[in-house]
Amino acid sequence: MTVRVGVIGAGWIGQEHIRRLTDVVTGAQVTAVTDIDAGRAATAAARVGARVLPDGAALVASDAVDAVLVTSWGPTHAEHVLNAIAAGKPVFCEKPLATTAEDCLRITEAEAAHGRRLVQVGFMRRYDRGYRQLKQVIDAGRIGAPLVVHCAHRNPTVPETYTSDMAALDTAVHEIDVLRWLLDDEIVSTQVVTPRSTSKRFPHLKDPQIMLFETEQGVRVDLEVFVNCQYGYDIQCEAVGEEGLVRLPDPAAAGVRTAGSHSTEVLTDWTGRFQDAFDTEFREWIAGVAAGEEPTGPSAWDGYAATAITAATVEALHSGQVVATALKPRPAFYDTE
Amino acid sequence: MTVRVGVIGAGWIGQEHIRRLTDVVTGAQVTAVTDIDAGRAATAAARVGARVLPDGAALVASDAVDAVLVTSWGPTHAEHVLNAIAAGKPVFCEKPLATTAEDCLRITEAEAAHGRRLVQVGFMRRYDRGYRQLKQVIDAGRIGAPLVVHCAHRNPTVPETYTSDMAALDTAVHEIDVLRWLLDDEIVSTQVVTPRSTSKRFPHLKDPQIMLFETEQGVRVDLEVFVNCQYGYDIQCEAVGEEGLVRLPDPAAAGVRTAGSHSTEVLTDWTGRFQDAFDTEFREWIAGVAAGEEPTGPSAWDGYAATAITAATVEALHSGQVVATALKPRPAFYDTE
Amino acid sequence: MTVRVGVIGAGWIGQEHIRRLTDVVTGAQVTAVTDIDAGRAATAAARVGARVLPDGAALVASDAVDAVLVTSWGPTHAEHVLNAIAAGKPVFCEKPLATTAEDCLRITEAEAAHGRRLVQVGFMRRYDRGYRQLKQVIDAGRIGAPLVVHCAHRNPTVPETYTSDMAALDTAVHEIDVLRWLLDDEIVSTQVVTPRSTSKRFPHLKDPQIMLFETEQGVRVDLEVFVNCQYGYDIQCEAVGEEGLVRLPDPAAAGVRTAGSHSTEVLTDWTGRFQDAFDTEFREWIAGVAAGEEPTGPSAWDGYAATAITAATVEALHSGQVVATALKPRPAFYDTE
Amino acid sequence: MTVRVGVIGAGWIGQEHIRRLTDVVTGAQVTAVTDIDAGRAATAAARVGARVLPDGAALVASDAVDAVLVTSWGPTHAEHVLNAIAAGKPVFCEKPLATTAEDCLRITEAEAAHGRRLVQVGFMRRYDRGYRQLKQVIDAGRIGAPLVVHCAHRNPTVPETYTSDMAALDTAVHEIDVLRWLLDDEIVSTQVVTPRSTSKRFPHLKDPQIMLFETEQGVRVDLEVFVNCQYGYDIQCEAVGEEGLVRLPDPAAAGVRTAGSHSTEVLTDWTGRFQDAFDTEFREWIAGVAAGEEPTGPSAWDGYAATAITAATVEALHSGQVVATALKPRPAFYDTE
Repeated sequence: MTVRVGVIGAGWIGQEHIRRLTDVVTGAQVTAVTDIDAGRAATAAARVGARVLPDGAALVASDAVDAVLVTSWGPTHAEHVLNAIAAGKPVFCEKPLATTAEDCLRITEAEAAHGRRLVQVGFMRRYDRGYRQLKQVIDAGRIGAPLVVHCAHRNPTVPETYTSDMAALDTAVHEIDVLRWLLDDEIVSTQVVTPRSTSKRFPHLKDPQIMLFETEQGVRVDLEVFVNCQYGYDIQCEAVGEEGLVRLPDPAAAGVRTAGSHSTEVLTDWTGRFQDAFDTEFREWIAGVAAGEEPTGPSAWDGYAATAITAATVEALHSGQVVATALKPRPAFYDTE
Repeated sequence: MTVRVGVIGAGWIGQEHIRRLTDVVTGAQVTAVTDIDAGRAATAAARVGARVLPDGAALVASDAVDAVLVTSWGPTHAEHVLNAIAAGKPVFCEKPLATTAEDCLRITEAEAAHGRRLVQVGFMRRYDRGYRQLKQVIDAGRIGAPLVVHCAHRNPTVPETYTSDMAALDTAVHEIDVLRWLLDDEIVSTQVVTPRSTSKRFPHLKDPQIMLFETEQGVRVDLEVFVNCQYGYDIQCEAVGEEGLVRLPDPAAAGVRTAGSHSTEVLTDWTGRFQDAFDTEFREWIAGVAAGEEPTGPSAWDGYAATAITAATVEALHSGQVVATALKPRPAFYDTE
Repeated sequence: MTVRVGVIGAGWIGQEHIRRLTDVVTGAQVTAVTDIDAGRAATAAARVGARVLPDGAALVASDAVDAVLVTSWGPTHAEHVLNAIAAGKPVFCEKPLATTAEDCLRITEAEAAHGRRLVQVGFMRRYDRGYRQLKQVIDAGRIGAPLVVHCAHRNPTVPETYTSDMAALDTAVHEIDVLRWLLDDEIVSTQVVTPRSTSKRFPHLKDPQIMLFETEQGVRVDLEVFVNCQYGYDIQCEAVGEEGLVRLPDPAAAGVRTAGSHSTEVLTDWTGRFQDAFDTEFREWIAGVAAGEEPTGPSAWDGYAATAITAATVEALHSGQVVATALKPRPAFYDTE
Repeated sequence: MTVRVGVIGAGWIGQEHIRRLTDVVTGAQVTAVTDIDAGRAATAAARVGARVLPDGAALVASDAVDAVLVTSWGPTHAEHVLNAIAAGKPVFCEKPLATTAEDCLRITEAEAAHGRRLVQVGFMRRYDRGYRQLKQVIDAGRIGAPLVVHCAHRNPTVPETYTSDMAALDTAVHEIDVLRWLLDDEIVSTQVVTPRSTSKRFPHLKDPQIMLFETEQGVRVDLEVFVNCQYGYDIQCEAVGEEGLVRLPDPAAAGVRTAGSHSTEVLTDWTGRFQDAFDTEFREWIAGVAAGEEPTGPSAWDGYAATAITAATVEALHSGQVVATALKPRPAFYDTE
């Protein structure tokens, strides 16, 4: 059975996922596209033989759509996801699930009322081989109980439109989700310390930032977010436990020895780093939808937590204080296993 | 357009590729299967909704088959490939192209007479990211003119049916193909030196073996083939040129520090090592067939060279002497610009 | 000219340095030893043919002593160092220079009054090859202006006598000195966050601790101190600058592949890690003394800063607050170059 | 007790060892120097307060000399070593022990007749930490019985005076000694295959060369000697056994990430690579001499074997054939328990 996917939002990431669903993932077909820019929708749809629909509501309602992919502008996510839940259709929503914790909660309530999981949020790191190795090592007890995690998230550069708040909202949000999953633990407080900013970029931007998280179990995380590090796209993660540590591998790269130096390439384009993770994410999602199973990826609750924790981190950046994330208790509906 | 593939041979590798063409590669459908064991064909076909055909000739001739995949017993390859050429259908043949150099040459002659390339041989290493990085580095001139290549091909164990000749025929054949491609050069002589054999396995087996190749351009290659190395599946390749060297990366693996040791996993199952390469190989082959393009992967000529060089290597193992590979000159039909 | 060294304190580290000055470093001779435990002094002295003197004052005053090595109990350091300054003799004092910032300042004042540098403090990391490589890379501008430094200091275990305060006083003190030197910058504030403590050791002990330092230039440092990490003695340091980063190398270790694993040894005994650094430290100190030059290693001012910063860090541990180190301005006497 | 060393030969390596015995190694004093160039001897002697003696015989005979260091021109080694044996004095001879196997045998016979070991040959790799780790791993049985060893010996460049024969005589000789020691085995045959030579250097020079050794136990070794590799001084060694492998570590070097690349320095000056090994070699030799013990380093027999095997390798280079090393049986005098 082919899963017929309707795509809401045909910007860069939407087009990328349309390509993925068409060329990379088997068992899926993009049958409908909508976008606030009708021309962009038409171009994207034409490329894969899909129809263009006037808006998200029409797309969710369409008989030609089995499952919905939301890749539109963040502030519109909640509405589309709620529509999909109302229609009882599986929906994959790129992060954020919604731009406010309140909207996220509304989604979780709607989904719980529906009684069956429909929503998956697009945190692709859980599908990365390296992170999966980390989780296996931790879950197998090989490092003992985790105590500390050191992370870094570095981009070569960002455009001038990137703001200091986006370090949490757009960048650290990936670590926030993957840490909660890796540790099977919740983040209860957040703090941001700010080194002097790099002189290489914009005066308005606090970059790098060091974020400090504390979990319910007492694990401490430090996360360096440095989005104008110049040298490359570099994701680091090291979890230290009572008996050992485990470290995320760097991508495999040929070693070259020339002119007094042994060197390996560091990625400079982030799309290369998580391409396989995106492919796996969508392959698993489509397979689950095709099999009529509830999604096993990041849930609406994970989407809520990410939004709430990033919002608290923005507050911490502005206040210079430790900020409690003050997450609601997780409803039993979102328990796993 | 979906490429309809007929599969000749439903053993382990045939089933694996049927799964790949069905679940992993988009744009392909397995529509017909045949096997000398009719029950095995029926099982494999049923799983993907394909028909069973009585034999290779019928399969090649079938209207339901756009392209042929040969995964049958080696000695039958030549016949099926020749049939496909006669039918003007693209054919992907797992190695070896044929078990004798003469049969391989007959295929190249048939294909040249047909006037258009139809044959691709299943040497998947050319699709491995690491080897592609090596080729990029070499082709970009970063190490200068290659002079020496060091290789190792190690398996944890092989079954008792594995013979000393198979070290060349089944194992080193992968290095032989990938070296010719990496270096864009031809192997002109071969020699085998035999260390004492491991006591861990069968008395009949010469294992490890060190193979020494010389290329037309004067590059020297040493290749350790060790198929009962116990510790893992481990593929090494280092090319040394006039100005530097480049080394194949090990697969990325999480680093774990416990009990006085930093360790990373070494694969023990070879299927994990080249899974991505197989996927890419078939993705590119299907895309080419769908686009009506001639195959860009290993050609019938490459299949001939591999068979001739492995045969010379077996002779070298038995004689203890340096053996010339005595390859025919490559017809212009097989030139790549 | 052989430098005749008098050693005050013949405990473990004193004996170790006596051995070093005798067997490893050329140009030195231990001629006198004193210790609060006369028997211990006698044993240590006998081994190298040195005389035993009744106390530090007598040793400093002895005509047989050109230079003084202080390896006694920390609270006695100040007195011995002040004596040496008064006597105009070069003095090497193991850390801490003194146990209070006030005593350290008194030493700096005495030395400045003397008008010539006599004091070197035993922070051996500045003599480690890896740290020297880091400094070269940073000083050469290869990573641009430093912004963030990530450090870890891990021991397999500590004895029950180790207290939470010692994480700063005895352990982090090495990073504190080496960071000031690496960055050529001063630490202005300190904070400690405490993950849940490992269950592997003593209930009284906060372990691990994450220390956060801010420098005058705005560099932010995070330092994980984990003295019961079980797996090994492991020192990590990574400096991130505006254009790149540099990372302390792990000690070179043979790679072993067996049973599905590639592994390298992690030291479990800290003495192996900085043995070469200790040797170099003393070789350079003795050479300087022999040449009549002022010491180039960590100065009394560095000793003061280390004591003041570790004290502030202990306060930060207890208060949970950010604590200013409130260092005095550095007198011109301690300017370098 | 200070060991008074007389040095025969004050060229580069002689001066280097005089410096080492004076500044680095405790318990030694260079008391006499001789050289065919009297001015050079005078300069070297003056620097350390040693006397100049007219020739090797006078130096060996001198009452001021407890032990002899031979660092003169290779063809003169045998005479000096025989003199030292005749005088019953410990003698450290830089490689080669003698330039012909016959002269080496004459030395072993003289030493055996003397009845006590006096001779140590200057193969410093046995004192390198990395090689010692390899030997520990092999001797502990961690890789099982060795079967294959892969080595590379690369220099950035050599001067025009370097000949093709020197690849064996001066360069591979280090691997030949260290392999015999690592494997506790003897080399019985040798072969050389020659890739096309690098175009970067002299037309007269066969460079690189691949040497192939076979041991008595059936271990096979391939050794790439490439003395104009341009990129660095790089020593590689990997021993593969029945159950695993062990690989020589690269020297520890800080990792630097800048501009899309992770890089570590490769040495370009060979003196840095084995400086510590030289220091340890002399420290252990002097300690042994001081203690009146027989030397534990490479023996005269090892010197004989190295000379015989390198001579056979030169013959193999010229003939293109496998050449038996035809070593004499080792006298019981040279057994090590």
